[in-house]
Formats: sequence, C-alpha cells, structure tokens
Amino acid sequence: MASGAAISYRLRARDGAARSGVLHTARGDVDTPAFMPVGTHGAVKAMTPRQVAESGAQMVLANTYHLSLRPGEAAVEKLGDLHAFMCWEGPILTDSGGFQVFSLPNKEISDAGVRFSHEVSGERVELTPERSIEIQNALGADIIMAFDECTPFPADQTLAGTGVRRTLSWMERCLRAHRRSADQALFGIVQGSTYEALRRECAVALASLDLPGYAIGGVSVGEGHELLCRITSFTAPLLPEDKPRYLMGVGLPEDLVAAIGFGIDLFDCVIPTRYARSASVFTRRGRLRLTHRRFRRDAYPIDFSCDCEACAGGVTRAYLHHLFAANEILSAILCSIHNVRFYQRLMEDARSAIAAGDYDAWREEFLAHYRETA
Amino acid sequence: MASGAAISYRLRARDGAARSGVLHTARGDVDTPAFMPVGTHGAVKAMTPRQVAESGAQMVLANTYHLSLRPGEAAVEKLGDLHAFMCWEGPILTDSGGFQVFSLPNKEISDAGVRFSHEVSGERVELTPERSIEIQNALGADIIMAFDECTPFPADQTLAGTGVRRTLSWMERCLRAHRRSADQALFGIVQGSTYEALRRECAVALASLDLPGYAIGGVSVGEGHELLCRITSFTAPLLPEDKPRYLMGVGLPEDLVAAIGFGIDLFDCVIPTRYARSASVFTRRGRLRLTHRRFRRDAYPIDFSCDCEACAGGVTRAYLHHLFAANEILSAILCSIHNVRFYQRLMEDARSAIAAGDYDAWREEFLAHYRETA
Repeated sequence: MASGAAISYRLRARDGAARSGVLHTARGDVDTPAFMPVGTHGAVKAMTPRQVAESGAQMVLANTYHLSLRPGEAAVEKLGDLHAFMCWEGPILTDSGGFQVFSLPNKEISDAGVRFSHEVSGERVELTPERSIEIQNALGADIIMAFDECTPFPADQTLAGTGVRRTLSWMERCLRAHRRSADQALFGIVQGSTYEALRRECAVALASLDLPGYAIGGVSVGEGHELLCRITSFTAPLLPEDKPRYLMGVGLPEDLVAAIGFGIDLFDCVIPTRYARSASVFTRRGRLRLTHRRFRRDAYPIDFSCDCEACAGGVTRAYLHHLFAANEILSAILCSIHNVRFYQRLMEDARSAIAAGDYDAWREEFLAHYRETA
Repeated sequence: MASGAAISYRLRARDGAARSGVLHTARGDVDTPAFMPVGTHGAVKAMTPRQVAESGAQMVLANTYHLSLRPGEAAVEKLGDLHAFMCWEGPILTDSGGFQVFSLPNKEISDAGVRFSHEVSGERVELTPERSIEIQNALGADIIMAFDECTPFPADQTLAGTGVRRTLSWMERCLRAHRRSADQALFGIVQGSTYEALRRECAVALASLDLPGYAIGGVSVGEGHELLCRITSFTAPLLPEDKPRYLMGVGLPEDLVAAIGFGIDLFDCVIPTRYARSASVFTRRGRLRLTHRRFRRDAYPIDFSCDCEACAGGVTRAYLHHLFAANEILSAILCSIHNVRFYQRLMEDARSAIAAGDYDAWREEFLAHYRETA
C-alpha cells in the first residue's frame, strides 16, 4: 500500500462497470466485491468470531453509536482497541453514528451536529463530526466513516441540498479532527437523495479531497430496489476508479448483484443475521421461512449447494423447524452461520464471474434460479 | 463389547472407591468418569454440535418427555434417529420422561403409570413404562433409562417404599417392552429416597436382573450437597462393579468430585449451560457472575487455565460483561462453551488423578482453590 496510507485498493479485473479488486489493510486483505457482516454492539449476532471468519468474511462492521453508549469508547480503548475487544483480528470498519442518530425520534439537527437523548443515561448529548471522529479514533477500526447528514426518504430537493451542503462541510471538519490518518482510512459519504445533480455535486467535491475511499449513503432508507439501482447506477461512475466504493447498509441478494454490476466494491447489512433469527434463510432457489409447516418433516439441508457448518454438518430443515418451535438459541446460531456464508459465497461467485468476464450472464442465471421459489 | 450387548464397561483404574474406565458403545467410547451435557429438546443450549464435540464431551443426554411432545418421536424416526436429527454422531442417552412428568402440577400417579396434560395439545395423556420404552426405542439412543417413580424430597418411608415397589415393577415392564436390547442398553434406576434400607432393597433387586448399567435416581430434587453425598456413598457400593453407575441430574463441581470419590461413572446436568445463560461461569478459583460491575474493565479471560474457544480466543471478562449488558446471544454462546469445557476438564483431571492413584489429594486441592473466591 502507498506509504503513509492506512489502506490501498488494487483493481484486479473489470467487466463492464463491475469490478473486482483487493483492499489492502495492515490487518489483511479484503477481496472485493466484499460483504461485511454487521457487529452492531461489537459482536456479529449469534456467531462466534471464529464462525464469522470461517464464513469467509474478511472484514466486519461495528457501530460507533452503539459502542459509544455502551461500553463507551474508553472501555474499548482500555482493552487495546476494537479488534482486541471483539476478538476480531481482521480489518474492521466503523460507521460514524450518523445513520443511527438521524433515525432517533427527538433529535435536533443543526450545522453544529445532532443533539439527542442518551439511550442509557437519558441525558441530552451531541454528536458532531469532531466527536464522531474522536470516538472512531479511540475504537481504532481500520476504516472509519465521515459524519454525514443522512437525508431521509423521500426528501425534496431543498432538504436534500441542505444534506449535501452539511455533509461536505462536516467532511472538512472530520478531516481536521482525524488524528490517526496513518493507520485509519477515513471514507467520505456521497449524499444527495434521488437527485442526480446533487449526487454529482457531492461526489465531485469529495473526489477533489483525494480520500482513501468513498461511500454512497442515504440509501437503504426505504427507497426500494428500483430507486436504489437508479441512485447507484448514476453515482458509482462519479467516484474515483482507483478507490474502493462502498454502498452503505445494502441489502438483499438482488440488490447486491445489481450494485456490483454498477461498480460497487463493499457492502454491509444486518439482513443475513436478522433474517436468520426470524427463520428466513437464503438458498440458491430463493428464500425459505423455516417456521412454515411444510418444513416439519423436511430432511433436506437448508441448501444442498452450501458448505456451511449447518448444511455440511447434517442439519436438516426439519431440525431447524423444531429448534425454532422449541425456541432454542441454536436455531438463530445455525441460520446465521448459513446466511452469512450464503452472502460470502455470493461475493466469491461474483468475483469469479467478473474475473471470467461474464458477470452479466452469471447475474442473470443467479437471479433466474433465485426467483424460482422466492 | 460382549456379543449381543449394546454397550460394555471396562474398569481401567481404581483409587479407593473412585474408579476410571471406559464405556464402549457402537458409536464410540466414553471415558469415565464422564459428564454428559444436556440437550433437552435435542440441542445442547446455545452450542453447535461441533462445539459440544470440541468441549471433549463424548456422550450427550436428550429428554424423552420433551422430544415426545415436540417434534414427536415419529418425526425424529422419520429423519433416521436422534443421532441424525440432532447431528450428533457419538453416543446419546435418553431419560425416561419420568423425572419431568413427576414434576408436573396436575399429574395422577397409579400403578399403571402417570396421567398428565399434554403441554402442546392440552389433552390428557398417560406415560407408562411401555410407552416410555416405545418412545425411547423410536428415538434410538444408545443408552435408555427405565421409567421409574421419582420420589419427591422430602418423603416419608411409606411414600419412598411405594416408589421403590413401583420402580421395580415398572422395571420388569420396561424390560418386557424393550424391542431393541441388541443396540440400546436399558439402565435401571435405584430409588428409595434417603433411606438406606430402601436403596439397598432396590439396588439388590435391580442387580439381580443383570442390567447393562445402573443409575441412582431421586437425587437433585432439593436434598442438598450433604444428603446427596450420604445417599451416593451408601448406594454406589451396592451396585455391580462391572457395570457403569450413573448419578442422575448432578450437579455442581463440588457434587461431582464428591460423587466420583464414591464410585460414580456418569453424570448429566443442565447447570453448565443454564448458569452460562445467566452469566455464571466456572473457574478453577470458583464461580464468577460476569454481570457484576467489577468485570466492566476486566481484561482477563474467564479462566487463565482454560483452553476453550472463548478463553483461548482472546475473549475477556469485560467483553462478556458488555455482551450480557447488550443482551447479545453471543454472551450465552461463549459462556456455554466455557462452562461445558470446564466440566469436561474437571472429568479429565479426575480420570488422571484416579489413574495416578491420588484422587483424594487432587480433589482436596481442587476444592481448596475452587472455594477461594466462590
């Protein structure tokens, strides 16, 4: 990686707008396109760190907002850093906390930052660009995110414009506040809602800062698959080619394969683990809800083609149906292991298809099978 | 193993009354003294089958009562047997269901069996010796238990005497009902409450049947450590030396090391997994409650001497304290892995001490350290 830079990105293959590459970090490489499992409170839900690593995941995401409330970044720092705290030796990305505070009910947004009520203590606190970076510097993730204004959906052009203006001004403050640029890469976030002109304005301004990576934010806020595709398709090409591109909080398998086609490199989402806990599992032939009666005596694995600890270990749909009925924690564990592995295999297959130069054909075939029973 | 017998027991070493041996089964050997983790609904709570195996556990217990209600033994049989169902290739022991139905509120006990209300359907059903064996034959565990009358504690001598009489008569009915003696070993259970004469009467009568193994039941019902020790100390020597001896539902580490000293070979208990879920973890220096504030910044592993996935993987007490505070499933997972491994190491150390001929000294040293902070 470039001397003095926390990370570097090397493009390996290109197929139309789709790209495959490798993100070098001091804690290991991440093959892209990559999916990051989410460890909100410093733990990928219902999975041990070893199981997360065995899924093929090379980087995980943790939430600045939640960790700053509990246990507090000082407690994490006391134990070394977030890697030591959550027993994850590979690269970690922390978000800025912006997405969470913008979804709180009693927030007050100003040019200074966002004021809100502390979930644990109840007192009124403020999250600012400076404070977000201070927390993220203390947590010590390999990639940290700028504190942006996450525009709600839908938003009129004025509101979206204010979001872009604030996001750009806060970006400058984040850069000034950042104390660990040698070992933490600070990514900028493109806002602008559904407005191409605003997205362009934001992307161009951020690109001029020569940041180590760029994210598309303000998605996964209820806009739906079509609008997500539209936003991604016109925003991704505005981002520098030699830097990683991260689509925040996305999404379902159909969202991911579309976004990869538009040139996205990084994803994170709670879907694989959240769906697992409510008995929704992903297969090559679509999603199954294992609590349905039809799985009571189903002796098949979740997915014949899967090599996860559950599918390869003889776990049947009938057994999982039973575990959900009996309210056994093991149901969430096994389905989380499976779903996270499903997402990682999806990324592996996408990377291979891009390398082979037949990404579009692979995606069409994947979608044709995936929609069979979904 | 003896031709035609489902299991056999070979004594390896003796040290006073304590003994170490090996239980041969068609699905693998079990080194004794052995502790069986409990998989009530066909799953050791919060642990994958692989994690159970990695703990060193060689045999697990599953509950006939719970499995017969849900998913029903026919569903288990449809998938092969209990081993296939719960993805556990090693030996399994099923209890008779007696202990569970005797603890139900609206049961009616007669010489025929026990009538109770079905937890799921609500209808009035009966569990008899014949029905219990029928279910256990269908589940297909390697060791199955006779349907006995579990005398409550305290019980007067008349009540305890009735329990022994019924237990012996039901034992005969279990033997007649048993259809798979070639591949399932049926153990008898000694009842008799706290009365030495009754325990002797029951043990002598059962011993005359030349069963493949013997259990001491009617313990772990609130009698406490001292009475448990007294019952075990006078009952264990009444059992045949060449057959495995199983103390049912016991217990805490101090109970186990005492009972091993009286010549017990097999144990099962929900304590390691149940305590784990409420943040109680076992260490060589006693039990810790990880939700206590003093662990908030504690960078130590649960137990320095432990080699479990959590302790060896860098998990700190502070991280677990945080996971419990954040209500993360991973807290239960990691503490269950640790506690079950603690119990297995306790058994390993006891076996080594017996082999070395210094069991009493080892037990005294274990207890001296264990009580330091408990």
